[in-house]
Amino acid sequence: MESTQSSELVAALAERVQLLEDQADIYRLVFGWGAAADTGDSQAAAGLWTDDGVLEVEGSPLEGRSAIFDMIGSEGQQSLVRQGCAHVQGFPVVDIDGDKATATNYSRVFLHSEEGYGVWRVTANNWEFRRTADGWRVTRRAAHVIDGGPAARRLLSRTFYDEARDPIS
Amino acid sequence: MESTQSSELVAALAERVQLLEDQADIYRLVFGWGAAADTGDSQAAAGLWTDDGVLEVEGSPLEGRSAIFDMIGSEGQQSLVRQGCAHVQGFPVVDIDGDKATATNYSRVFLHSEEGYGVWRVTANNWEFRRTADGWRVTRRAAHVIDGGPAARRLLSRTFYDEARDPIS
Amino acid sequence: MESTQSSELVAALAERVQLLEDQADIYRLVFGWGAAADTGDSQAAAGLWTDDGVLEVEGSPLEGRSAIFDMIGSEGQQSLVRQGCAHVQGFPVVDIDGDKATATNYSRVFLHSEEGYGVWRVTANNWEFRRTADGWRVTRRAAHVIDGGPAARRLLSRTFYDEARDPIS
Repeated sequence: MESTQSSELVAALAERVQLLEDQADIYRLVFGWGAAADTGDSQAAAGLWTDDGVLEVEGSPLEGRSAIFDMIGSEGQQSLVRQGCAHVQGFPVVDIDGDKATATNYSRVFLHSEEGYGVWRVTANNWEFRRTADGWRVTRRAAHVIDGGPAARRLLSRTFYDEARDPIS
Repeated sequence: MESTQSSELVAALAERVQLLEDQADIYRLVFGWGAAADTGDSQAAAGLWTDDGVLEVEGSPLEGRSAIFDMIGSEGQQSLVRQGCAHVQGFPVVDIDGDKATATNYSRVFLHSEEGYGVWRVTANNWEFRRTADGWRVTRRAAHVIDGGPAARRLLSRTFYDEARDPIS
Repeated sequence: MESTQSSELVAALAERVQLLEDQADIYRLVFGWGAAADTGDSQAAAGLWTDDGVLEVEGSPLEGRSAIFDMIGSEGQQSLVRQGCAHVQGFPVVDIDGDKATATNYSRVFLHSEEGYGVWRVTANNWEFRRTADGWRVTRRAAHVIDGGPAARRLLSRTFYDEARDPIS
């Protein structure tokens, strides 16, 4: 009976460790986005997502890995890379529920110019993740610039509430 | 005897896992502040603190949850929210000692305007936490803008020293 | 036999916990740099490195703890501290391999002036660490400002690739 107790303790502990490892895996996905975007690496960027992953910026969705691959390879993005851009992700608040997870964070894009660095975009993000056979992947990132409107607040409010809501209106 | 050894090993491991979980809980409090402030959500903001929690900005203290609740609901703060503000916390260096913890980090406030984004405040922070029946809560946050004076340096120096000191003067 | 299985399970779990603790130790080194630099604390800054540690900024190396000690104490650095500077590190993507580790992150330097805060530098970093008798220490940090050139991209690309490569050229 003692050894049963012990193996139950170890199993419970293993689950807690798994949860901490899942968090670390998800940090890697979120922070990997910056390096992929700022090196203009389409393959690395698309590889963070599931095949059916969606990247939705200001309500406009890119659907599927290949759409994300193409966006990173586009002249617009490659031109930012040549100018010098830094898509700096903030640390995410992550919630894991089995094989699914969500996270909320801030991100900023700094742009280089001859006059120095400017803050081009400051953005609120909701992320959704799924555990796949290859590990955690992003299934959806909804992003909106923080411009005083309700869309970014709705994304940030998911740090505290399951359902999107605008705590101000 | 072997099973005693094993259960001691498991207990020691459980303590180490607890410490890692405590760290993650504290990250959530620190990063929750941004989302609470930028959605103007008084209840979420106050809920991060203990009842007797203190938020001290540039030496001026707000004492107790209700003072923090009122500050977030004030016209000044709500006006920042409508303008578009991002209270972005930096990753904290956390020290846990049983049911108490401290942390040091940077924070920045970005403000939106028609011309783009400006960096309004860059701040050094000391945080203190207590484990309560409802989980970890903030008992004190001392914040000071980084303006070349000794106050912010004193806060940052606690990353390395228990007692506040000014390593420059 | 069951108890052998159990002790193997516990040993495997202990290794996983160790890895998570190693990550947390490395976060502390990376984020400690900011506090050391911004308080102008030569001893704290040098103490993050091994004796033979190298700090290489824009290809120009400072070799050894004492070189880093001297740099922080230099009039140039102390003048930044008196002006008000914030060397804010971004969260690192860390890879641990036994007693060695590497990490990639962004960093930014914000500078205070009478007109407010400016973004002085936005930098890509590769870090290397070694586990010593005194715990993890930095053996090398290679840093390059993000200016549109290949050097910063090469550093960022190590988030995804072991060998440095320029995914753009």
